[in-house]
Parts: sequence; C-alpha cells; structure tokens
Amino acid sequence: MDIFIEPIGKLINEFTKLPGVGKKTAQRYAYKIIGMSEQEAFQFASAITEAKRKVRYCKVCGNFTEDEVCDICKSRDKTQICVVKEPKDVIALEKLHEYKGVYHVLHGVINPMEGVGPNDIRVKELLARVQDGVTEVIMATNPDVEGEATAMYIAKLLKPLGVNVTRLAHGIPIGSELEYTDEVTLSRAFIERKSI
Amino acid sequence: MDIFIEPIGKLINEFTKLPGVGKKTAQRYAYKIIGMSEQEAFQFASAITEAKRKVRYCKVCGNFTEDEVCDICKSRDKTQICVVKEPKDVIALEKLHEYKGVYHVLHGVINPMEGVGPNDIRVKELLARVQDGVTEVIMATNPDVEGEATAMYIAKLLKPLGVNVTRLAHGIPIGSELEYTDEVTLSRAFIERKSI
Repeated sequence: MDIFIEPIGKLINEFTKLPGVGKKTAQRYAYKIIGMSEQEAFQFASAITEAKRKVRYCKVCGNFTEDEVCDICKSRDKTQICVVKEPKDVIALEKLHEYKGVYHVLHGVINPMEGVGPNDIRVKELLARVQDGVTEVIMATNPDVEGEATAMYIAKLLKPLGVNVTRLAHGIPIGSELEYTDEVTLSRAFIERKSI
Repeated sequence: MDIFIEPIGKLINEFTKLPGVGKKTAQRYAYKIIGMSEQEAFQFASAITEAKRKVRYCKVCGNFTEDEVCDICKSRDKTQICVVKEPKDVIALEKLHEYKGVYHVLHGVINPMEGVGPNDIRVKELLARVQDGVTEVIMATNPDVEGEATAMYIAKLLKPLGVNVTRLAHGIPIGSELEYTDEVTLSRAFIERKSI
C-alpha cells in the first residue's frame, strides 16, 4: 500500500518540479490544494494553463508578452537597447523605474562548456535591430564568466556599427562591508575607482 | 504599465497562496511554469484539479481516500484506533510501518480561543466507532496545549466505555542534546523517567 493515494502522490510529484521544492515542501503544497475549495483549486489550475497559453515572446525584443509585440517595445524610446539574458532580468530592471529605453532578451548566454554558441542565442536579431537611430546598447548580462564573455563578444560586433556600447558598473554593493566583499569584486571596485 | 503582464501576474498571485511562498518564490515558480512545455504545464494543472476532484474523506475514519472507505479501514486491524488531528498526521505515522491498526482523523482540535468546540470536530464519530471489539485508542494529537486538552477530553469520554486509552510518549527527541532541549520537554522527560 502506498503511503499517498494516487492523486495526492501525483500532485506532490508535480510540485517537486518547481525550483527548490523538495518532497516535504511539495507535500505541504499538495495539502494546501486539497484544503482549497473546488473553485479556488480550479482557479489555480487555470492560472497555470492560461499563463502557458497566453504568454509568448515579443517578436522584437524577446520579452514576455501577450501580443505580438510587447508594451515596452510599443511605447518606449528606441534609441537605447538594454541587452539581458532572460525575461526575468527585464523585470528586475523595470522595478527600478530608471530606464526609459527598450530591451533585447538574448534567451541565454554564450557557454562553450554547455555547447551554447553565438548562434544559439538572439545575437543576430540584436545586430539587425541596431540600425541608425540606436545610440546606446547597454550590456546587462550577469557579472559571471559567461555573462562577461557574452557582453564582450557582442560589444566587439557592435562597435564597428558606430554605436556606444556600455556595461553595468561593477563594484561594492551598497550597504555591504569591505571586509565581507569577495576579492574579485573588491579588486574590480579598486581598479574602477572614480574621483568624487 | 504593470511590471508583470496579466497572465504572469495572476499565476504569481496564485502561487503566493501556497504556505510559506512569498512574492519572490512565486515569481520563480511562475517562470518555471512558463518555461515548461505545453504538455508539462497541462499535466501540472490537471494534477491540481484531479487531486481536488478525486480526493475525499473516508466516511469511517476521515482520512484522505478515493473510494468511500479508505484502504486502511478496509484492510487493517480494527481493535486499535489511533486518533490524529489531520490526514497528514496519518501519513507521518504510516511512514514508520509500525502500526497495524486503523485511524480516526478529528479534522481539528478543541480550541476555545478560536471557537472550536468538541462538536466541531469528529468526536461523536469516534465514540460511535468505539464499540465492542476496540481494545485500545491511541491519542496521537500534537503535544501542544490544544492537542493535549483534546486528548484529555476524549480520554475522559472513552474511559467509561472500558477501553484502554493511551497517549504517545513525551520526552527528549532521539539524537538531540540535553543542553538544547526545552525546559518543558526536559522536565516531562524527567518526571516520566523509566527504569532500564
């Protein structure tokens, strides 16, 4: 006799597919679902299918959208393009309410170890977008080895087109302490010190 | 402009209804769903609706079941009844593979502060089950104030029926250290010390 009856076991199994969810947490989630009203559970399930069905990628920038072209591409300043790895990076930057330009989502970074080359991410599409009118391309890939390499690679392709390519600043995070800052970051912050 | 497009925002909102899930975690879960294939997402959603539709409570013991009566009630020794607060407690005990009797799920404990009286939980149903043949009722409610009070209340009702009422042992958890055991548990363990 299984400890869990089949529909509960199945649901637990599905929940373990979520990032960072182990068996115990999945179990708690499953109990929560079973404790919900029919209507609440149905609403939950349909939010999943709806999101999967309605959300697609903007054909211009590659960000999440419901239409063919996303709201950002439709309404914002197209002279600046901010290049990110994934759609969730767009959300991280949008939360700042600082940036008024558009985005370009690469859907990955160059990673030879995993066999991801420049043709496997949306580099061609970026080059096609950088036509006359674009004054700045901001490379906002993650500050890790692959993110840096991708930024450098793209910058090299873009410079001959006469566009200003910038990179997010590296340095000591605000509110942190020198003592606990890792050496690479600290040395980078030291090298890139600015006059005040 | 909202940071999240509507279907993603809705899905994030649903995920925050799960226990211990904040906005950030819900966001990660939502991205995971969007990254799934249509089929995977559909399977996830249908596991939720299926679990909600198929899982009901055993009409004898109140545990989760797909049929009218659960597999445990159908097949096991009915002379012992183990009384627990919730269906998930049954699973915790079943994992031990120790107990061969049946269960009785109260679906709550007596909690005057929250207006839960003996008539709001499945006490009547338990009394009806404790007919001739039942030799032992094991009170396995949680070792907190409400769980203890409920165990005492039910024990008082059952004793006149001539049934042996037992309670799970309290004491120092195996593998823990005296130094870090809370005082209530330690004093209980001391009072209930056993000869070896």
